[in-house]
Amino acid sequence: MEKTSASRAFGGVQGVYKHRAKTTDCDMTFAVFVPPHNEGQKLPVLWYLSGLTCTHQNVMDKGEYRRKAAELGLIVVCPDTSPRGERVPDEPDNWQFGSGAGFYLDAKQPPYDRNYRMRSYIADELPDLIAKHFPADMTRQGIFGHSMGGHGALTLALGNPGQFRSCTAFAPIVNPMEADWSKPAFEKYLGADESDWRAYDACALVADGARFDQILIDQGAADGFLESGLMPWRFAEACAQAGIDLTLRMQEGYDHSYFFISTFMDDHLNWHAERLK
Amino acid sequence: MEKTSASRAFGGVQGVYKHRAKTTDCDMTFAVFVPPHNEGQKLPVLWYLSGLTCTHQNVMDKGEYRRKAAELGLIVVCPDTSPRGERVPDEPDNWQFGSGAGFYLDAKQPPYDRNYRMRSYIADELPDLIAKHFPADMTRQGIFGHSMGGHGALTLALGNPGQFRSCTAFAPIVNPMEADWSKPAFEKYLGADESDWRAYDACALVADGARFDQILIDQGAADGFLESGLMPWRFAEACAQAGIDLTLRMQEGYDHSYFFISTFMDDHLNWHAERLK
Repeated sequence: MEKTSASRAFGGVQGVYKHRAKTTDCDMTFAVFVPPHNEGQKLPVLWYLSGLTCTHQNVMDKGEYRRKAAELGLIVVCPDTSPRGERVPDEPDNWQFGSGAGFYLDAKQPPYDRNYRMRSYIADELPDLIAKHFPADMTRQGIFGHSMGGHGALTLALGNPGQFRSCTAFAPIVNPMEADWSKPAFEKYLGADESDWRAYDACALVADGARFDQILIDQGAADGFLESGLMPWRFAEACAQAGIDLTLRMQEGYDHSYFFISTFMDDHLNWHAERLK
Repeated sequence: MEKTSASRAFGGVQGVYKHRAKTTDCDMTFAVFVPPHNEGQKLPVLWYLSGLTCTHQNVMDKGEYRRKAAELGLIVVCPDTSPRGERVPDEPDNWQFGSGAGFYLDAKQPPYDRNYRMRSYIADELPDLIAKHFPADMTRQGIFGHSMGGHGALTLALGNPGQFRSCTAFAPIVNPMEADWSKPAFEKYLGADESDWRAYDACALVADGARFDQILIDQGAADGFLESGLMPWRFAEACAQAGIDLTLRMQEGYDHSYFFISTFMDDHLNWHAERLK
């Protein structure tokens, strides 16, 4: 692991790091904020997964998480959204597939199955690296994210409830199997058999029996993707049927941007901190 | 004036606007955050001037001012740092002159004197526009900024103490006449006669009799530009001799980035709010 940059912020350190990842077979970059803490202290780890077209950097620049994370004593890890590099197959003109659009799944179809393994990268490889290099208590992990990253957070939490003790999302894609902006990617990554898609769809996971104690979702009511791609009411319905305690807050006037995310960031950090104590 | 974008944030609206500016003879873009307020209410206006290479956007994305400005009821205006456009003379490979490097002065030398009139733009033209289009109480204006923008804030406040009731700065260039990264620009904009430069140099202004009641400066002690370009102790000395109440805080471990700015943003907003009540 190599340190790309490190800056003091809110008494802690916002760093950016690079490493050669085995799961995605390429160099991966990620950001970690370590809050002020005492020597030897181990801190809870909160994973933030970003949306389509993003890297580790967008939320680091615009998410406004450091002040509250410093106050609450949370490590915040912000991974990239896909493998990248010359040797990684991509569709450069397609923002909904390839670079910046890994959808937090493990691809089964060649040529994508070699690099597009973000599920394993986020669930297994990167946690091992974080445990090794940072003052992290890996028994206390939470996960959240935005849009495609909200999909990632929900599906990772539902798929690994033993690993994550808290889960929230901003404007998540809750039913990517059925949404126009994700369906073509799922087909290319996973193949035509839709039964293979269900492990990567929050609604399908809940229908198939996956459970998580409590989930918070904030959704902007003025979000341009609300009707076409996000449709949080589908997840609300699935949770209601399954008895999952979902808090879905429709936020009047808010769009899909980081202005929305940063506004409700404190609420999400408080939510996680309460459950990771 | 044309609205480029507007997003709800922290109960207010973060907007970006464009207009044809007379002083700089080109289209200018600026950002305005209007906090939540009652119908008919007039709010204090806080000007944030950005540093070299920046546009209106950097602090809008990374400054983390909206949460506290919403709480305190401050309008925050973030102008661009120079004129821009095909017809504006520039040195594209020089980040310390031309586009992104207007130095908040009115140029006297051709061909720069036609467009590079950021002093008049910020002090006169843009306030008129803000007064016309936003719920602004122009009797309550404060000003702050970063680096070149800290220079802008100090020199505008010292030059117009009747216009601005509060002034703070993050890592300001306090003595641009004498610093390597600003001297060549001053010569090109203003000519060889250094007596014309003094109105745009905080240290020189104070030496020449300009006064301002109280000033707050935060400076990162790990800032790579500290010794070569910033040298805040020169301003501290000038203020001490002149009896100006300067609070200069050296912040251990902090660099020149927005990680530094955002960390101390709340303190600065509180400082201004107390004086703009």
